[in-house]
Amino acid sequence: MTDTLKTLSEHHAFGGVQSFHEHASHEIGLPMRFSVYLPPQATHERVPALLYLAGLTCNEETFAVKAGAQRMAASLGLALIAPDTSPRGSIAEGLPGATANWDFGIGAGFYLDATEAPWSTHWRMESWIVHELLPLVGRHFAIDDQHLGIFGHSMGGHGALTLALRHPGRFKSLSAFAPICAPTQCPWGEKALGGYLGEPGDDRAQWLAHDASALMKSQTAAPYPQGILIDQGLADKFLAEQLHPEAFEAACFAAGQPLTLRRHAGYDHGYYFIQTFMADHIAHHAQTLRG
Amino acid sequence: MTDTLKTLSEHHAFGGVQSFHEHASHEIGLPMRFSVYLPPQATHERVPALLYLAGLTCNEETFAVKAGAQRMAASLGLALIAPDTSPRGSIAEGLPGATANWDFGIGAGFYLDATEAPWSTHWRMESWIVHELLPLVGRHFAIDDQHLGIFGHSMGGHGALTLALRHPGRFKSLSAFAPICAPTQCPWGEKALGGYLGEPGDDRAQWLAHDASALMKSQTAAPYPQGILIDQGLADKFLAEQLHPEAFEAACFAAGQPLTLRRHAGYDHGYYFIQTFMADHIAHHAQTLRG
Repeated sequence: MTDTLKTLSEHHAFGGVQSFHEHASHEIGLPMRFSVYLPPQATHERVPALLYLAGLTCNEETFAVKAGAQRMAASLGLALIAPDTSPRGSIAEGLPGATANWDFGIGAGFYLDATEAPWSTHWRMESWIVHELLPLVGRHFAIDDQHLGIFGHSMGGHGALTLALRHPGRFKSLSAFAPICAPTQCPWGEKALGGYLGEPGDDRAQWLAHDASALMKSQTAAPYPQGILIDQGLADKFLAEQLHPEAFEAACFAAGQPLTLRRHAGYDHGYYFIQTFMADHIAHHAQTLRG
Repeated sequence: MTDTLKTLSEHHAFGGVQSFHEHASHEIGLPMRFSVYLPPQATHERVPALLYLAGLTCNEETFAVKAGAQRMAASLGLALIAPDTSPRGSIAEGLPGATANWDFGIGAGFYLDATEAPWSTHWRMESWIVHELLPLVGRHFAIDDQHLGIFGHSMGGHGALTLALRHPGRFKSLSAFAPICAPTQCPWGEKALGGYLGEPGDDRAQWLAHDASALMKSQTAAPYPQGILIDQGLADKFLAEQLHPEAFEAACFAAGQPLTLRRHAGYDHGYYFIQTFMADHIAHHAQTLRG
């Protein structure tokens, strides 16, 4: 397979290298961007990696710039991969409704493959990430793509939980910051699922297949026996209406899935909250990925 | 004294609080913005603080978002203060030439008091910071404004070095990331000093009073006997033409001033470089400020 991979920039950081890339995605049918942090250990071995999925309005730079994850990743020998959150550019932006709302279309791919026109042509974030991006980084970087963890924030927390549950065995470890836990029951989710997947139908099966709490409820054995870590701020203005961690907590309990759900007084939805607990998340993944 | 202080936002971070503020500055004659990080220790004592001065095009948010300093500040019990880099708003932006260049005018105050029209009315960054902002944060926050360190990046590194040397005793500790060390000898500096202070004249005295290397050379005793820390990336594209750390190094040697100037292969001028060495800088200041 021939990859078109263009390196946009590289920056030394904590003894490793933070880099930004673009490639011609055949799943998306458009150029897509992502960032990679390689820790110093990657100069002499293939390292495990964490895939981080960002939230609404973010892009492939947000995590690298704002999350403060590279220090711990360097110390524990983990790579970091952060994709953009949707197709971009004039073709994507030209679709009717692509840029009218900050919570749908551009910057709001919700990490699924759309089935409704006009989104179904390019909005194929799940296939891009799982079937194209991860193999590609395994080919081009000193990354062991058989030892991957996944985490994310808000919409990206939804992405982390659902991709982890929809692709058993693909990701060895899982965590999230303030994730959208039940998109079939919140305004952000209803708008995205309705727009990308169409009306839910009587059994809502197509929607529920992208709802982390519904997916967890249907498990017959704990998919992450070593535990899932979720942090949630209690001053998060989106908590009550959009996030529903209690639904995922109940689903984990029903499925026998160990879950550490930490509720933090005073913390909001932003990257200061994420930075504060980032080291705990990286340590959580390292425990499984590096033993 | 009555202060007009408006809190724009507050965010819990690492057990403390990152906040953003605006006040009606009488030195500048316009509203000015700054950020403050208070570590958890500030809930029960007045804490020492580090004043961070940012580089060209940056504002009061850059350091808080990108530098990753709060973790170490929380751990060592130091507050962080970061002012904007110039006057802003329609009056400032309306001055002829204020927005035409990214390295002069808006976002490029160079931490001095302009003497040339039209800049002399509002571009009074040195007086604002030293005589107005620092007392103000001492009144409004649990900050011990008699125990301050100063550091900065690029133009803000110039600011840190020059303010530290121009106000003996005001700052107890000093460090810089990739500072402009000899503005009288580089294009950025010549443009700023010429624009804000006018033609240098035969003795260049007015310019040299804002040149860190010239100021250091004229010291009769080491102003920072515990040492100054400077980090410089060797892949920094501005190093050869704009920064001249060797001039400051020579001046420190001549003045008997202990200097740790670390040159790092591969590192560039950006915030990944800054993040990488931030913990060392905070530890350097804490050693003096907290003993």
